[in-house]
Amino acid sequence: MTTHELLYLDDLVVGAEYRSAEHGLDAGQTVAFAREFDPQPFHLDAEAAKNSLFQGLSASGWHTAAITMKLLVGSVPLGNGIIGAGIEMQWPRPTRPDDTLHVVSRIVEIVPSRSKPDRGIVTVESLTLNQHGETCQRLVSKLVVMRRPA
Amino acid sequence: MTTHELLYLDDLVVGAEYRSAEHGLDAGQTVAFAREFDPQPFHLDAEAAKNSLFQGLSASGWHTAAITMKLLVGSVPLGNGIIGAGIEMQWPRPTRPDDTLHVVSRIVEIVPSRSKPDRGIVTVESLTLNQHGETCQRLVSKLVVMRRPA
Repeated sequence: MTTHELLYLDDLVVGAEYRSAEHGLDAGQTVAFAREFDPQPFHLDAEAAKNSLFQGLSASGWHTAAITMKLLVGSVPLGNGIIGAGIEMQWPRPTRPDDTLHVVSRIVEIVPSRSKPDRGIVTVESLTLNQHGETCQRLVSKLVVMRRPA
Repeated sequence: MTTHELLYLDDLVVGAEYRSAEHGLDAGQTVAFAREFDPQPFHLDAEAAKNSLFQGLSASGWHTAAITMKLLVGSVPLGNGIIGAGIEMQWPRPTRPDDTLHVVSRIVEIVPSRSKPDRGIVTVESLTLNQHGETCQRLVSKLVVMRRPA
């Protein structure tokens, strides 16, 4: 299987891992995202961030999530796209403005649909890691994955 | 209590509701977000979207989530900010490029920390609704909320 081949439900195997490319952050990106979507002092202002729970400037968790999605689109080549029905997510440690992130995804469970035989629900755990190998985000997604078209 | 007063752990009551302002979307916003963070055809191209599971152009779920965060920051005035330890989220229906969203948040549970007496974990359910009152996103957040400083 080449890396360009699109994957459908029957191609997936529990335990298979997919590693993404890297995304390098900087304070320009993290502050711009926070200003638009998460305008809180600990994401915007280094002085204010020092005295926050984060003890320093951090990226919005939603920014980490959005970058994770971009990296998933590039690393998990599902034929019908990456369509999440629902997710669970934790941020065990802050993403810092100078972090370089990558995502390692692992297939946890594959459940064919009973009511809709053309698809299934695939549970994928995606860890978003910084340049030290530390987990900044743990995402568990239930994805809708179609069978290969006839 | 004025709407400008900051809320701390002891101010919160299970069942209390907070309604946000509105955010009006357009295809310029949804396509720009998708191009940066979720570049999949059903978020970018109206023709391709017609034949997708979404049956038409839709916003990235992560865009809905990011707008939800912006609306939460403006509507739930927690003294130490809105800091999520973990979340669960579903998207029962697509957000469309011309939707106008608002968020209704409800306090579900308040659990003082045993190990850290200055804080607690507060569970908040936030529904992101479109202009028809339909739920585009259901977010359940575990927030770290501090007691009022002495």
